[in-house]
Amino acid sequence: MPRYKISVEYDGGPFVGWQRQDTGPSIQASLEDALFAFTHERVHVRGAGRTDSGVHARGQVAHFDLVADKPVEEVRGALNYYLKPNPIAVPTVEIAPPGFHARFSANYRRYRYRILNRRTRAGIDAGFVWHVPVALDLDRMADAASVLIGHHDFNSFRSVSCQAKSAVRTLEMLSVRRDEEEILVDVGARSFLHNQVRILVGTLALVGRGQWSRRDVEEALAARDRARAGPTAPPLGLCLMEVRYGALDAGKGDDAEEPVDDE
Amino acid sequence: MPRYKISVEYDGGPFVGWQRQDTGPSIQASLEDALFAFTHERVHVRGAGRTDSGVHARGQVAHFDLVADKPVEEVRGALNYYLKPNPIAVPTVEIAPPGFHARFSANYRRYRYRILNRRTRAGIDAGFVWHVPVALDLDRMADAASVLIGHHDFNSFRSVSCQAKSAVRTLEMLSVRRDEEEILVDVGARSFLHNQVRILVGTLALVGRGQWSRRDVEEALAARDRARAGPTAPPLGLCLMEVRYGALDAGKGDDAEEPVDDE
Repeated sequence: MPRYKISVEYDGGPFVGWQRQDTGPSIQASLEDALFAFTHERVHVRGAGRTDSGVHARGQVAHFDLVADKPVEEVRGALNYYLKPNPIAVPTVEIAPPGFHARFSANYRRYRYRILNRRTRAGIDAGFVWHVPVALDLDRMADAASVLIGHHDFNSFRSVSCQAKSAVRTLEMLSVRRDEEEILVDVGARSFLHNQVRILVGTLALVGRGQWSRRDVEEALAARDRARAGPTAPPLGLCLMEVRYGALDAGKGDDAEEPVDDE
Repeated sequence: MPRYKISVEYDGGPFVGWQRQDTGPSIQASLEDALFAFTHERVHVRGAGRTDSGVHARGQVAHFDLVADKPVEEVRGALNYYLKPNPIAVPTVEIAPPGFHARFSANYRRYRYRILNRRTRAGIDAGFVWHVPVALDLDRMADAASVLIGHHDFNSFRSVSCQAKSAVRTLEMLSVRRDEEEILVDVGARSFLHNQVRILVGTLALVGRGQWSRRDVEEALAARDRARAGPTAPPLGLCLMEVRYGALDAGKGDDAEEPVDDE
């Protein structure tokens, strides 16, 4: 019974999110339905990150097991065939290494958040950027971002409905840079709390607008209280760019963080 | 009676092209209708490039005259308001310099063509890339592109319905590079013939696939016959990125080319 590892790319706009739900179409259900059409097997597809409704992915990773031993190229072709016309593509399919789990084996996730920072709304890419019409100060944002990098209790920066036992996470990277009219926030960590990236971005936007100082961000972090951080930025600007897998026991040390990810 | 110069950004997918036509919605008509809703004036909006159906723009430039002397910020706000929900935005509005004409004063246009070069179709950006599933050889394409740079008779590289009197044009830039899974073709010239960029790209794709050699491209150029060049690449990969304006009489020398552009 082979385990397959796949990469998945999607426009999250028309979906209720990664996870199968009764309320509408999901990426997970679309993949499971495509696999059923192909193999007539009802399988469970597990994703590295359970992206929320409206969040996109260029580098989501998932796995599933099939009873039938199908060649990877056939699985790739069939998945993309049956996924049409959904805005979901599966660029790569491979046999997973022994013990592989898309969610629990992942040891690095990278997200990008795109802010369109100009007066006028987007003509192109409207569903992929958060439009902030007020000028944001990039230097102030980058300075405040440095407060958040590293090992912290991010309780202020997670959804009140976040299920993770601990809010301690290590932000390996939080970079803020300008690309023409956009501000790109790139964030990397072993795993993230529910809505963590969107709350980080919503908070940094307050700093960029001049409403918050670096000190306010330090206090918000120290408070460990969701009510003390900034608002949750909208989902449409967020995209899961990459998931990495290292040695499979990398997360089992003393300092292991929960390998979950519910952005 | 002030003349306004505007920049325009659009997703060309749902339109019959820049130019007003009876067969469906156009960018030009959308702008003219938005101006009518705002001013109750029936004006003619002239664009720098008459992009074809399905072709996008990030840096289209256009002009129009209004009887009413409206502040530029008011025009910008009203245009974007009345253009909704069309995927068209007008990021900048300014008073045009004396004698300005969006089409005839332009002395440089830059287009980008995006090829998604991987087995699997696009999950994101499906309407903005040409999907070529066969591996393209970038070095071969870049080498063949060098044949086309410079001052040539591009009769082989224009639509048979092209209206320009002369097919002589000067390609200032034709760069081919890879950006992850995409091949980006950037092209710059004072002006282009009808479908010129798309035929250049369709021809370079033949070279990238190994079906054509550099020599075939040289012969196609020398033949001055549309039937001898490659196919016209689909419109959805093409985007008008930038239009530049220099000294207004820059095009009046002996070597002046027709300042039209019908990509």
